[in-house]
Amino acid sequence: MLQERVLTGDRVTGKLHLGHYAGSLKNRVALQEQYDTFILLADVQALTTHFDRPDVIPRHLREITLDYLSAGIDPERATIFVQSMVPEIAELTVFFSMFVTVNALRHNPTVKAESKSAGLGDMYYGFLGYPVSQAADIAFCKATIVPVGDDQLPHLELARKIVRRFNELYKPVLVEPRPLVGDMPRLVGTDGSAKMSKSLGNAIELDSTAEEIAYKIRRAKTDPARVHKNDPGHPDICPIYAYHQAFRPGESAEIREGCEKGTLGCSACKQLIAGALERLLEPMRERRATYAARPKDVDDLLMAGTLRARAVAGETMKEVREAMCLDYFG
Amino acid sequence: MLQERVLTGDRVTGKLHLGHYAGSLKNRVALQEQYDTFILLADVQALTTHFDRPDVIPRHLREITLDYLSAGIDPERATIFVQSMVPEIAELTVFFSMFVTVNALRHNPTVKAESKSAGLGDMYYGFLGYPVSQAADIAFCKATIVPVGDDQLPHLELARKIVRRFNELYKPVLVEPRPLVGDMPRLVGTDGSAKMSKSLGNAIELDSTAEEIAYKIRRAKTDPARVHKNDPGHPDICPIYAYHQAFRPGESAEIREGCEKGTLGCSACKQLIAGALERLLEPMRERRATYAARPKDVDDLLMAGTLRARAVAGETMKEVREAMCLDYFG
Ligand code: SF4
Ligand code: SF4
Repeated sequence: MLQERVLTGDRVTGKLHLGHYAGSLKNRVALQEQYDTFILLADVQALTTHFDRPDVIPRHLREITLDYLSAGIDPERATIFVQSMVPEIAELTVFFSMFVTVNALRHNPTVKAESKSAGLGDMYYGFLGYPVSQAADIAFCKATIVPVGDDQLPHLELARKIVRRFNELYKPVLVEPRPLVGDMPRLVGTDGSAKMSKSLGNAIELDSTAEEIAYKIRRAKTDPARVHKNDPGHPDICPIYAYHQAFRPGESAEIREGCEKGTLGCSACKQLIAGALERLLEPMRERRATYAARPKDVDDLLMAGTLRARAVAGETMKEVREAMCLDYFG
Repeated sequence: MLQERVLTGDRVTGKLHLGHYAGSLKNRVALQEQYDTFILLADVQALTTHFDRPDVIPRHLREITLDYLSAGIDPERATIFVQSMVPEIAELTVFFSMFVTVNALRHNPTVKAESKSAGLGDMYYGFLGYPVSQAADIAFCKATIVPVGDDQLPHLELARKIVRRFNELYKPVLVEPRPLVGDMPRLVGTDGSAKMSKSLGNAIELDSTAEEIAYKIRRAKTDPARVHKNDPGHPDICPIYAYHQAFRPGESAEIREGCEKGTLGCSACKQLIAGALERLLEPMRERRATYAARPKDVDDLLMAGTLRARAVAGETMKEVREAMCLDYFG
């Protein structure tokens, strides 16, 4: 194992679906073999949008953990931990907030988009500051690598800036993380919209049954030009083709050809991907059932991961306090 | 002792002077007899303005503690504690920040004044949010009473709002503090400017020697109309008269009469107040010397106070997490 640490994670706002799997979870399962992997259950960050309904968070927390385990995250290798149980992250957030201007936050693309719709003034203070807390998530464990999509690069750039500024102001005790940009495009929804998302109702969850997979694929949008079986299709505008690309990459050229030539019917095409998805999710479902039957073990594993994260956090904060001259009593 | 808890404190940005004594410290010495008194050494808040020179904070921390002890704060009664050593305050700050809007903060008078000069965008995120962290300072220990000057009432009002909102959103586990408005006016500086302040060079520190007191009083501004010894004076524009009112209230009527009639010379008037200040500060100087000779004991006392504060913080956060459904593992 290299001396590199990867930080990844998810906001605890709902169980994971194929979009999460293709976009990051699959990659994490591979990364854990190579790197010391920290996986953050971002329940505090979930509060930026869920502060008025936190009662759903405990359920989501366990569901996402089962998603991780079922997808192949190995709790012996990866450290799965709960953000709200690592107070050092909040402490570091507060320290960072002293030297980050409102402008630096407001120019963050996500915040910018939100401030356009709601106005900066009506934004919640914690929402405005979530890049600061994200920097703290990364810095507390001295992550060296943060896997990101293209769209998240500006966030990571701000986190890097914050870490650099800390190191300049005090002492270079924090580690500037570098992005690991994934080559997986964002997975489209079954309705063809740009993003698979639970709230849009166009997602296939990782815990779907074979019937659910078949049903959702059957109902998925296809190229509307294919009215008759032999009409030539346009795979690039069809979500089913995107799924072939993501989950059956070896066969996607063949699918494209069949679709464009009108020799492959949509129904057959869908059956092929439904079968592939079932072969992907079936073993996950089994692993999930094993863990779901032992809820106490899952909790223990979260506790153990969180304790591991806290130990690292404690070490880092010792250095942070020393660097900031706040280590009054040695 | 009543079931009331008082929270007071100071930003750790410099040692205390007569303005602090008259405006709050004297009052705290009285309050500790009646109430469970928590005194916050606000070193994290000091970072809002001192993030680029935190190296001065450790010295100030000890100096202010000596100021407290010398002024008569009894560490057996009062809990003196260090803000940065109570991570629960940072955690609560982060939780509160989720439901406080930028507008609510921006309309806080202090933030408003700053945002007028620097602009909201150039303001540091932590500075903008300091009313949130102040609310956390008060809420974590369930303080029921917060002594404030008139000018700080809007801050406390915002803290009360934040606590109320938390209690409405989740469960009524936090305590809405009430203000205890002091009747002491702000002490003027020796140069006659509205506020005694170390940075203005017009302050008489609590650790002043007899010589320093005499020197600063001798050099203090008086009514410029009093060119000749018997010119009638205007005590209301004279800082020396303000000191008589603050520290020799029983004799201030007499001083006013002598000044207005021109029967009391400024030099004699100054000698009277210098003598009174020396009688006030002399026993403080002795107590200070005793403690200053035992720095380890002073550190131990800060540690003990901080541990006491952390114990209270732990209890509160247990309830806070339960109220917010974040107590995943019981
Ligand atoms: S054949 Fe397949 S790729 Fe082509 S439109 Fe039908 S479902 Fe989509
Ligand atoms: S007599 Fe005293 S109060 Fe009057 S102007 Fe002189 S110093 Fe001030």
